[in-house]
Formats: sequence, structure tokens, C-alpha cells
Amino acid sequence: MREVVIAGIGVTKFDLYDGEKAPLKESYDLGGEAIIEALEYAGMEWKDIQSAYIGSCYQGVGAGQQAIKEVGLTGIPIVNIENACSSGGSAFRLAYRDVAAGFCDVALAGGLEKMPRGLIQATSWREWERRLGFNVQPASYAMAAVRHMEEYGSTLEQFAKVTVKNRQNAVLNPKARFQKEVTIEEVFNSRMISKPLRLFNCCPLADGAAAAILCSKDKVNSNDRLVWVAATVLSSGVYGHERGGGSVNIKLPGRTERSSREAYEISGCGPEDMDIVQAYDTMSSYELVSIAELGLCKHEDAGPLLEKGYFDLDGKIPVNTDGGLIGRGHPLGATALAQIAEAFFQLRDEAGPRQVPGAKVGLCHSMGAGPSCTVTILKR
Amino acid sequence: MREVVIAGIGVTKFDLYDGEKAPLKESYDLGGEAIIEALEYAGMEWKDIQSAYIGSCYQGVGAGQQAIKEVGLTGIPIVNIENACSSGGSAFRLAYRDVAAGFCDVALAGGLEKMPRGLIQATSWREWERRLGFNVQPASYAMAAVRHMEEYGSTLEQFAKVTVKNRQNAVLNPKARFQKEVTIEEVFNSRMISKPLRLFNCCPLADGAAAAILCSKDKVNSNDRLVWVAATVLSSGVYGHERGGGSVNIKLPGRTERSSREAYEISGCGPEDMDIVQAYDTMSSYELVSIAELGLCKHEDAGPLLEKGYFDLDGKIPVNTDGGLIGRGHPLGATALAQIAEAFFQLRDEAGPRQVPGAKVGLCHSMGAGPSCTVTILKR
Repeated sequence: MREVVIAGIGVTKFDLYDGEKAPLKESYDLGGEAIIEALEYAGMEWKDIQSAYIGSCYQGVGAGQQAIKEVGLTGIPIVNIENACSSGGSAFRLAYRDVAAGFCDVALAGGLEKMPRGLIQATSWREWERRLGFNVQPASYAMAAVRHMEEYGSTLEQFAKVTVKNRQNAVLNPKARFQKEVTIEEVFNSRMISKPLRLFNCCPLADGAAAAILCSKDKVNSNDRLVWVAATVLSSGVYGHERGGGSVNIKLPGRTERSSREAYEISGCGPEDMDIVQAYDTMSSYELVSIAELGLCKHEDAGPLLEKGYFDLDGKIPVNTDGGLIGRGHPLGATALAQIAEAFFQLRDEAGPRQVPGAKVGLCHSMGAGPSCTVTILKR
Repeated sequence: MREVVIAGIGVTKFDLYDGEKAPLKESYDLGGEAIIEALEYAGMEWKDIQSAYIGSCYQGVGAGQQAIKEVGLTGIPIVNIENACSSGGSAFRLAYRDVAAGFCDVALAGGLEKMPRGLIQATSWREWERRLGFNVQPASYAMAAVRHMEEYGSTLEQFAKVTVKNRQNAVLNPKARFQKEVTIEEVFNSRMISKPLRLFNCCPLADGAAAAILCSKDKVNSNDRLVWVAATVLSSGVYGHERGGGSVNIKLPGRTERSSREAYEISGCGPEDMDIVQAYDTMSSYELVSIAELGLCKHEDAGPLLEKGYFDLDGKIPVNTDGGLIGRGHPLGATALAQIAEAFFQLRDEAGPRQVPGAKVGLCHSMGAGPSCTVTILKR
């Protein structure tokens, strides 16, 4: 297999593009913007792209082709990927494989989403699960949160502290939806969604898109601060080990553990080598689960370490430096690529006020109902 | 790249699974059935499958994972593919690439669809196109049909004759939705849909699923009558050359021409080598376009050759031997894999009463709005 580098990345601001707070834009408008930004970053033209994978969940038929119409129709293979919240990571993995195997030299991975307004049904659940109230995601995450508190002694204060940290990071990221910090009290005073999770424990609705151009080393325009794809792994669920969005039985090895262990093995890096981590934080309680399943610490230590600032921007392992799902927003198809964008900019020393000095290895982690999970490790 | 063979294929009967004519089944039920049939055919167990790509268009989030839950959750990478009517062909191509590049030895390609009832909006069209009435597929196909009549002298009788032929073939395929022949008069007397296309010129609604197991030669259980993947190509549209579902400007090289020429080059076969062809016939008029764009004859000869029986089951190049979309039905995500299944069974000499004697090379062609197009060539 050939080594693969990222030549360029583009990310739109994550916002509500419905013509009120932000201009009215469709998912293909956002996708087109992200692709053009990635091309400009890479110093490439659209005709240089030989293959494209576009992740989305709710955009109907031909979402990728529609976004690419904004840039140019050159006849290349375009594949639309739907893997829930790891759609963008799955697209990235396939673009990586095209280049690594030599099927082509320059491939595009994109993710885009204009989120549905109103109740978002988790359509992948079975009828009996829906009847038990599992048709909306917070329900299963709430169960996992309670279990985490019972098993590992985590507290509501710790869950709130995750939100506070990620909203602080988001303020340093102009492309994050939220540009305002919150306090622990504001989290506690926000509306109850599914006990014990309140509104500010949940990631917010946002529309957005992101795109990455992957290529062989000889196709990149500059050898300065090259970012390599060290590993990109996709796994699905295993019977009895996990369930849908939030693991209830959190003691058995879940797909995050399996994906990350494989990624560590492929990349030759361990969790101790990570300078930054983008961990899946669809609910603030779940960031603690993700951190431990990724092997950054033991489950019972995640909360206490968080309280000590271990995962802060200036901590030992900064987690969700761009605000994460909670601060940046969560347009499903785009999320995993926004994480990859953040790791890329951090490794390129281009993350501005949120730059982690000297970051050389980064990990991105996205879970998806279905279930699926992608873990990507980038190295400079 | 390694050579890749098909170890087994499964196809459900295509029908309306809504509890009246056929039992009530969901898309994941159908997907599970097709996968189990493919495993049985291959003499493999589910744990042998290392990677899965599942095509569908209207099944919401996690369709592939839901179908695979029917078989077993082993943690393998599962990617859901949406490429309109070429979703199944796109899934097949990715499974092929996994094995060809050595990412894994045994991969599954599946396609499944429980079609929406009522008006099916072609969601990939732009607002101005919808306002012009292009939001349903027959409109653009009707324009292409009229253009074909003007440019190439094709006739309504010829369009009707395509339906008659494909319905005759369907009667010999127990898995086709339609099990009854129609006459030219019945086509002419059927309800007008979009002038000049009548109901029996259009492919019917059907639910169904199909699955194929692709592997390296050392993983197959028998070397008897091995079916090889000689080429599998995906392309998208090119500005000015084509439009959505039905080409209006049919003189410029469309995605069918580009995909098939690339497939001929890769496989080392030409159109003259094809023993059977599964050509995209979403409308009967469009089979004539497909046949010519695949290079089987000139555009102006497609109709006259059809009338002479050239594309009949006992003709020079039998086209749509299983009934095609018009006779078999068209569950979007499953269609391209059903075509591949038919070519596989023909090449294995297992097509029963519709067997084309001595068939050794077959081509499958599926177009998708978006736009996209897959062409797959199988060889014995």
C-alpha cells in the first residue's frame, strides 16, 4: 500500500442555514463551498480530483453529485456514503483506500448535511425499540449516563464540565456554531431532555459541510508540514457488546475500543502518543465514555481527570479542541470530516488561538447509529 | 491487483411486500434473506465475510447494518451506499476493490429496497427543474423518447416491443414481479403516463434485495464454472453531455458510453463478445438508448434490430434475459445486483428455462439519477 497525505481541507461554518440567523443554503451549496475551499488550500483544480466519496444522512438521492455540480461535472466516480454520524469518516476511509491501493492518485472525501428540523427519528431502530421510547437518541445516552455514574462514580458536575470545556474551545473556533461560553450553572438550569441529560448536555443542531483531498505524496504541491493518514478504521457493532447510539453495557469491548485498537496497531502509535483527540461527544456524558474506550485513561478516571483539566486545551491530552459536537454543532454527514479538519489544522500549526503547541499526532473518533464507528489517526 | 471471483449470489423474489399480495416484509428482512441465500450458495458462513457494502436509496439511516443484524453482528466494516439506481452496482464495485487490492479476501455487496408508495420524487433535481415538471422520472424519459423517434426513426411499436420481450423473459424467471406476458395492444391501451410513454412502457414498483459474495480465488469452495469479475466501472455525468435520468441530448457521449468503453478496455472484451446483456430499461424506450450507448449497435439500428428479434432470448445478443427492470421490477438499491445475479446464473448455466446456451461473457448496466452509471462485465 502507498502512503497517503492530506493535500487540503475545507470546512464551512457550522450554523443554521435557514435564512434567519444564517443565509438560506442547501446542503449542496455547503458541500460545494467546502470542496472549493479544500481545492484552494491544496492548490489544485477540480479536474485533478479522480474519485469522490460524499457522506450524508438525510439529503435524499444523489447528495454528493448535487454538491459536486457546484464545482464541475467531470465524469469521475462519485459514491454517496450513509453511515450515520460516521458517514464522513467512512467516506474518508474509502478515499484513503483508493489512493493507498493505487486505484487513483487524488481522491476527495466530503461530508455534508442540512439537518432536518423538528424531531429527528433514529430510523434504524426496530419497532419494539421505538415503542420503548428509543426512537430519539438522548434516551439511550441517558441510560448509558446513569450506568456510568453507578459503575464509575461519574457525576453530573463532570458531565456539565465537559460542556463548559467544549464551549470554551468553540469560542476559539470561528467555524463553530456556538461562540459563547456557558457555566456549569447554565448547564444545570437548562431544560431537561432525558434524565439526567439536559439541553446543554446535548450537541446542538447545525448545518455544515467539510471536505478533504487525499493524495499520494508526489501529487502534493508542498512538502512543508505534510500530514499523513497513519490509520483509518471502520467497524460495526458486535452482538451483546453494545447497542445503537449509547452503550448501555459499557463493560464489554465496544466498537470504539475495537476500531481504536486496530488504528493504534496500524499506525504504530498508542493512546499515550496522541497530542490531540477529537472524541465523539454527542452528549457531554458520552465524551467520558469515548475518552476511556479510546484508551486515554480508565473509565473510573475519566471524570476526575477531566476535573483536573487533563483534557483542556492546555492539558495533558486536549480533547475536542475545536469545540466538539457540543460546541461546533453536529451536521451528521459532516461531523467526522470536521474532526479530521481540526486534527489537520492542529498538525499543520494552523489552528490559531486554539493551537496546541507542537501537535504532531491526532486522533478522530466518530460513532454512528446503525451501528458503526470510525477512528482516524493523522501524523505530521 | 488480484483477480476476483463471485462465490455466491442470492436474490429475493421481487414483489410488493405489503402484506396483501406478498407477505409484509421490511427492507432488512429482504436484505437478510438475500445474504443468507448468497452464503448458502457459496457454502460460507457469515463469519467468513470481512467487509460489506449495502446499496439502498430510501431506507433511512443504517439500512445495511439493519439487514446484517438479520445474519449476525461480527464487527466488520459495513458501508451503506446510495447512488440511486446504480447503488447496487456501486456497492459491488467497492466490494470488488476490497478484494482486488488485498484489503480483505471475502467481501459482500448487497442491495435492498422497500420502495416508497405513492409519488416518488426525484429528490436530486433543482428547484427550477421541479417547477418545470421534472420531479418525476417519466417526464425526462418521455423527452428522450421523442428525441429518439425524431433523430433515429424509432417507433412506438418498437418501444412496446421492448416491453413485450422483457415481460416474456420475466415469465421464465420465478423471481420477477410480473409472471404474465403482455401484447403490443395491451401496451398501447395502458394508461398514458408522460406522452408518449404509457404505463406498460415504465418499469413497475417492486420491493426486493440481492447480495453477492466476492472473494479471491483461494477462498472459493469449488473451481467448477468460476465466474470472474472482468471489469466493474462507475462514472458520473459530464456537463452538457447528459441530464439526470434520461438523456435529452443523446448525441454526445454519455456516462453509459464512458463506463462501458472503460469496462471493455479493462476486461479485454468488446460489445461483440457479449453473450448476454442486462441493459438499463427503466422505460422501454430507454432500453434502445442503452443498447446503442453500450456499443451493441448504432442508435438508428436499435429499433429495427429489436424488431428482427436480435435481442430476444434466442437472438444474437439476448438483452434483459431475466425480464429487466420492466419485467422483474425495480427496487432501486437492489436492481444492479439483480442484473449481476442474472449474469452470474447465466454464466454458471443455472438460468433454467431462460438459459442462453453456452453464455460465457455478460454485461450489466445500470444508470442512476444523481447522475451515476455502473457497468460490470463478468466472465466464465
